[in-house]
Amino acid sequence: MSKNFSNKLTIIPLGGLGEIGKNMTAYVYGNDMIVVDAGLKFPEEEMLGVDIVIPDITFLVENKQKFKGLFLTHAHEDHIGGLPYVLKTLQVPVYGTRLTLGLVEAKLREHGILDQTKLIPITNESEIQLGEFTVSCFHVNHSIPDAVGFAIDTPEGIVVQTGDFKFDQTPVDGRHADYAKMTALGKRGVLALLSDSTNAERPGFTMSERTVGATIDEVFRNAEGRVILSTFASNIHRLQQVIFAAERSSRKVAVVGRSMVNNLTIARDLGYLQVLPTTLIEPDDISRYQAREIALLTTGSQGEPMSALTRMARSAHRKVEIYPGDTVIMASSPIPGNEKSISRTIDQLFRIGANVIYQSVSGVHVSGHGSQEELKLMLNFIRPKYFVPVHGEFRMQNRHKELAIATGVDPQNIFIMDNGDMLEFQGGVARMGGKVQAGAIMIDGLGVGDVGNIVLRDRKLLSQDGILVVVVTLSKQTGTILSGPDIISRGFVYVRESEQLLDEANRIVSSTLQRLATENINDWNGLKTGVRDALSRFLYEQTRRRPMVLPIIMEA
Amino acid sequence: MSKNFSNKLTIIPLGGLGEIGKNMTAYVYGNDMIVVDAGLKFPEEEMLGVDIVIPDITFLVENKQKFKGLFLTHAHEDHIGGLPYVLKTLQVPVYGTRLTLGLVEAKLREHGILDQTKLIPITNESEIQLGEFTVSCFHVNHSIPDAVGFAIDTPEGIVVQTGDFKFDQTPVDGRHADYAKMTALGKRGVLALLSDSTNAERPGFTMSERTVGATIDEVFRNAEGRVILSTFASNIHRLQQVIFAAERSSRKVAVVGRSMVNNLTIARDLGYLQVLPTTLIEPDDISRYQAREIALLTTGSQGEPMSALTRMARSAHRKVEIYPGDTVIMASSPIPGNEKSISRTIDQLFRIGANVIYQSVSGVHVSGHGSQEELKLMLNFIRPKYFVPVHGEFRMQNRHKELAIATGVDPQNIFIMDNGDMLEFQGGVARMGGKVQAGAIMIDGLGVGDVGNIVLRDRKLLSQDGILVVVVTLSKQTGTILSGPDIISRGFVYVRESEQLLDEANRIVSSTLQRLATENINDWNGLKTGVRDALSRFLYEQTRRRPMVLPIIMEA
Repeated sequence: MSKNFSNKLTIIPLGGLGEIGKNMTAYVYGNDMIVVDAGLKFPEEEMLGVDIVIPDITFLVENKQKFKGLFLTHAHEDHIGGLPYVLKTLQVPVYGTRLTLGLVEAKLREHGILDQTKLIPITNESEIQLGEFTVSCFHVNHSIPDAVGFAIDTPEGIVVQTGDFKFDQTPVDGRHADYAKMTALGKRGVLALLSDSTNAERPGFTMSERTVGATIDEVFRNAEGRVILSTFASNIHRLQQVIFAAERSSRKVAVVGRSMVNNLTIARDLGYLQVLPTTLIEPDDISRYQAREIALLTTGSQGEPMSALTRMARSAHRKVEIYPGDTVIMASSPIPGNEKSISRTIDQLFRIGANVIYQSVSGVHVSGHGSQEELKLMLNFIRPKYFVPVHGEFRMQNRHKELAIATGVDPQNIFIMDNGDMLEFQGGVARMGGKVQAGAIMIDGLGVGDVGNIVLRDRKLLSQDGILVVVVTLSKQTGTILSGPDIISRGFVYVRESEQLLDEANRIVSSTLQRLATENINDWNGLKTGVRDALSRFLYEQTRRRPMVLPIIMEA
Repeated sequence: MSKNFSNKLTIIPLGGLGEIGKNMTAYVYGNDMIVVDAGLKFPEEEMLGVDIVIPDITFLVENKQKFKGLFLTHAHEDHIGGLPYVLKTLQVPVYGTRLTLGLVEAKLREHGILDQTKLIPITNESEIQLGEFTVSCFHVNHSIPDAVGFAIDTPEGIVVQTGDFKFDQTPVDGRHADYAKMTALGKRGVLALLSDSTNAERPGFTMSERTVGATIDEVFRNAEGRVILSTFASNIHRLQQVIFAAERSSRKVAVVGRSMVNNLTIARDLGYLQVLPTTLIEPDDISRYQAREIALLTTGSQGEPMSALTRMARSAHRKVEIYPGDTVIMASSPIPGNEKSISRTIDQLFRIGANVIYQSVSGVHVSGHGSQEELKLMLNFIRPKYFVPVHGEFRMQNRHKELAIATGVDPQNIFIMDNGDMLEFQGGVARMGGKVQAGAIMIDGLGVGDVGNIVLRDRKLLSQDGILVVVVTLSKQTGTILSGPDIISRGFVYVRESEQLLDEANRIVSSTLQRLATENINDWNGLKTGVRDALSRFLYEQTRRRPMVLPIIMEA
């Protein structure tokens, strides 16, 4: 399906709209296309067995000859996690700030595609010209350093995409958002703004990351024993504050958890993290210090089953144990869906006798996304003609629209878009165009997109009531049963306690087969369906359960 | 296993400690036993396919000759939901207030055991003497009317169990908590207090249910179109406020959702709900009124897939549709684990064009449980010698302990108990005794406790990567393959797209069998294990997935 892109600018979100995650936006003008971000999303509950979800990039493949470059706003998984899968299909240069590319490098190396990829670092001074597009970036604050928004100059005018942002007035790295550049863009005149809707429901102004530092400092100073702090490995600002707090309270820092070690190393090597040479120690050396001299930095703030902290809480970690008297700081807020596993971890830590400091009882986390006042501030900096709330679920986009109207954007000029929608600009006028293929590609193990609805439906069925396999051999000639029926069940009932039930099931299969075989021995599907129906009905009557029934009828 | 209960009081929580749900507490003295509450709990994520969870009542069965009566604090599922299963095993009189028994009746009727059960209504004046126990109750405020706490007089002294409570200073039904009785108990001297820990982490004082009424009133008055309000069906106070708001704004009320209709009818018949004869209409008659004249009262505030509101939001409800311009009030807060399904429902309603009013943007819900100031107030009313924080997860019990210490309870006299722990009182002195059998009985369909860890483990496996069934027939004599191998897969890969993989799997099974059969044709387990291992290894290498492999080897 080829579309007409000549003499107009087309903006197509391929992910991140009506959802949190897998952010990706395509900009097309004539024969040129650039893309901002290539994120992943973690699977929904119903996506049983799925590891991660990435955007459907069919549109990018169909237009690969136009595809000039991929720009990254920052190095969070929901913005770069899909990159390896894009780059395995499409060879395209990737642009990002130093830290962003540093973290991307590690990821591409794991996937063995680092060498074949062209990574091009950008700064606030860069102006990248790719065909009809000229792209420059401006610094914003976020829960990871070196985050930027993009100003994309096109024949139709300038489009600004903020990326994830907040306005931190006391940033940990001292780098404020580039107010001058944003306001200058607004003065020049901006055609359209695409802005982060994550916290559009939150009134007020998001607290500074530094306020968390204060809490951390206090705990580190006053805790009699060891302090174990767990947070998102990518929140370099927070890692920095932990390091500083440790150095001020003369504690050594042991880092536990693969992603935490990786990110810390990369950030340090690139100069985004200041650490005294004597601060870090190996987990194995913890025992060589007094409890009062130790701080641990670890992953697992979301209660992820395999993460370091969760394993420590279960006393299942190879190297580190939690002792009574330890203070554990869960420096994060629950990502929706993780509430229960986090509570479980907190309870396990309390049971061990640790003192746990967590969200609902004290200020150990602030959001990386701007609240309503900051979103309105962005709108007033950029003063766009058109506005598209992105990066959020529908109710957040909806709320963001209201905020834009409050700042004076014409309601007619606000578009709440869905993944795959085409927003076209021609002669300075915007209109919704058609739709391109967009959606979720599920990745399970090495399989990319081979898990579809049928597979998920079966996994759902299997997970609810299990499966019964019925094996029986019929005589080719007479249709009488030569062997079986044998019934094997998994995930249905504990067999030892249900022999009667299964014996009865056996009789029902036999009688059903006998009856049907005498009617028509050659109608195999009829036999199978008959057995499946009779058995399902019986089992439902007896147990009110609907296990999957798999009849295997052989002839001899 | 028989224990010695003579000349001492033993308190044994059989559910509700270290968890939210399935509350049940046994009190034993000599040859007498009474039980407070018999609740259910909703299954944890990992309990795949399980419908509900109830306490293990082995201890009650073992001591059924002692079992004199079961007392109910209020009619929430986590306090009465296990009752039918207890009463199917044990015949025992059930004591509760009028509304509590009214709602219990309906439940027992569904289970067909109403006739065989003795339900005995109690009031604040009742004094029930059962052997060594004399039980009286006192009114408390909660998110359901007619909730009580119990004062249990024993030879060792008085034990107070609060049940779920808050102190509402402006209760909707005008009935305040029985402060006089509680303080009188405190004056007389109380041996031990068992108190609700649900909100022990929340500072301050829980808001009055009436504050929700004010919000509802305002919405009902100002909404141009229909108002659809969804809340917990058992929150009769809130239903009352909806009815009043409707009558004040001259709207008719249509009630949708089975449990909502049942509870409203029962509460109304028993005089716990005031409704003008003209207020209620049938859902079928909605169309006969203007949008401005309509209010809908419905279930589904937790985004439950089959609930009325969820189906309306999906436009899948038989009778009621949501239209643009409708105002939907989600008058509840998410129960942990339901966050995602609730957000999804809200988004779907927004997409239809409804105006949705929900927790995070406005005060449409208050908790039914007291916060820290109320918990301390209860402690200061009762002034117990010993204190046991119940009804909560470990961190809540822990926090509640701190609150008790703050009010002057001796830390030595506070016991954080687990389900099955025995707390013994003799000569006015308490000590932890042994443990009795306690735990979770999972109910799946009609099966009570027949789903065990093996079944759950299999369901988990099946849900992650599905199953492959391998069927092959070998010659009894030669061990050569007569038919097959046939491989049937479910929930693994979408077969059409994976023929190559399955063909290769087929070859591997054949070669493995040939090899093993020549070695030892009679070692069936060896053959099966060999096939399973070889196939699992191959599939993991190829797909990084571990489907369940079920080899079925037959001989002919």
